[in-house]
Amino acid sequence: MRLATIRTGDGTRAVRLDGGHYVGLGAADVGELLRQPGWRASASAADGPARRADGLAFAPVVPRPGKIVCVGLNYRAHIKEMGRDLPRHPTLFAKFPEALLGAHDDIELPPESGALDWEAELAVVIGAPVRRAAPEEAAAAIAGFSVLNDVTARDWQFRTPQWLQGKTFEATTPFGPVLVTPDELPGAVAPELELTCLVDGAVMQRADTADLVFSPVELVGYVSSILTLQPGDVIATGTPGGVGHARTPARYLTDGALVETEIAGIGRLSNRVRTP
Amino acid sequence: MRLATIRTGDGTRAVRLDGGHYVGLGAADVGELLRQPGWRASASAADGPARRADGLAFAPVVPRPGKIVCVGLNYRAHIKEMGRDLPRHPTLFAKFPEALLGAHDDIELPPESGALDWEAELAVVIGAPVRRAAPEEAAAAIAGFSVLNDVTARDWQFRTPQWLQGKTFEATTPFGPVLVTPDELPGAVAPELELTCLVDGAVMQRADTADLVFSPVELVGYVSSILTLQPGDVIATGTPGGVGHARTPARYLTDGALVETEIAGIGRLSNRVRTP
Repeated sequence: MRLATIRTGDGTRAVRLDGGHYVGLGAADVGELLRQPGWRASASAADGPARRADGLAFAPVVPRPGKIVCVGLNYRAHIKEMGRDLPRHPTLFAKFPEALLGAHDDIELPPESGALDWEAELAVVIGAPVRRAAPEEAAAAIAGFSVLNDVTARDWQFRTPQWLQGKTFEATTPFGPVLVTPDELPGAVAPELELTCLVDGAVMQRADTADLVFSPVELVGYVSSILTLQPGDVIATGTPGGVGHARTPARYLTDGALVETEIAGIGRLSNRVRTP
Repeated sequence: MRLATIRTGDGTRAVRLDGGHYVGLGAADVGELLRQPGWRASASAADGPARRADGLAFAPVVPRPGKIVCVGLNYRAHIKEMGRDLPRHPTLFAKFPEALLGAHDDIELPPESGALDWEAELAVVIGAPVRRAAPEEAAAAIAGFSVLNDVTARDWQFRTPQWLQGKTFEATTPFGPVLVTPDELPGAVAPELELTCLVDGAVMQRADTADLVFSPVELVGYVSSILTLQPGDVIATGTPGGVGHARTPARYLTDGALVETEIAGIGRLSNRVRTP
């Protein structure tokens, strides 16, 4: 299944996308849907009127996750090319929901930052509560996958040793357009998909999501050893090489830039950077 | 006013404490109350039946804050005694609501950690939405103050450069018992209060909340330059010297330890550490 949260004249609604059509699922958004036990069966069975999916307005696929847990350096090839050892533990940091945007919304260029950068990522969305999950339970708790760009104000990220303040500027983080359930993806809960980030049409990042050091299932297990993961929670699994900050000279996002973040088999985010 | 979220036979409710009695406020918890425009006037005017406040069961004063933003090193005397320069910017990190506990609940000793430590803190609770707040607006957005112990798994905090994973273990962070509005406190929005932390009756931390490098008003302004602060959001303002990890030898919390965290004029958290 491919699920989305779309904007309508009076709020948002969760829908299932079937080719060029969509069907409503009776929930205000995908987060609300995932909190309903049995959501897979009910979403799969929904057979309301099919409407044409042209020009849908996508909200963040889960508009208000209870938690957004982000992972640092997690692509094997990138870590090795930097000459570093593979980490023993995932590096985790947070992002707050105010940062999220829909798939085609403008990324707000904060006037407070002069170093806004891209970070294309595979996002794991949780579909059942889990605590101290063994691998099979962790796999079963994955509702599906989506695309997220962990847009980062590098100057604020490195003001202090803790990254949070550079990671959570309001209206900077596109997330969507859809959640795709594991059964539809090569590799299922360990998806093997090409991830790319283009800025103004030029490829900045390209990687295979199979190259993650800590897989989605391992991340769900690890985070759930700390606290309960709840339906609608999100784990952003980290970004590969090619960010603007690591280029020579460094390159940052400026007013008018177009950021396209795509995972083959899931979908594409296309966001214009704008001074608000 | 002194506000609390108490547990009842069928959930929780927000109450105003008046000496030895309490009055219900028609909201399920203090977070819901603060999201009502005009909450100060309505909470102040509430005149339902006054009940005796003996043996109240306190939930976290805001059970599900939308955001919990924590501040690193922020006590002037402690920074100076460490021979460091005062920071130019506050260090910010996050905690998730699953970590929160009521004022008398047990602190869960995670079997995954061997280094659970205390961090007594003054908590700022937000009472109105603010974005890019100037000082007067930031001051007006402070609903009041509470007590929080940012209990930390030091081994997990330092596994990686990002502290989040050591800061957000489930059921480790007592928060309450009450929110006190600024008009009731010496110093008002810059409260001048003695903060103490006792472990098994011995004083481990003692400081004056007037010694903060970044004041509550400055923190509200700073965080709101990044994203919108919403009613019920919490800023934990940092801890003074005296944590167990910095002692020689290091001292950590073990099963059965009693942690008492008090801010004079606000209240006291009294929590037993228990292996779940």
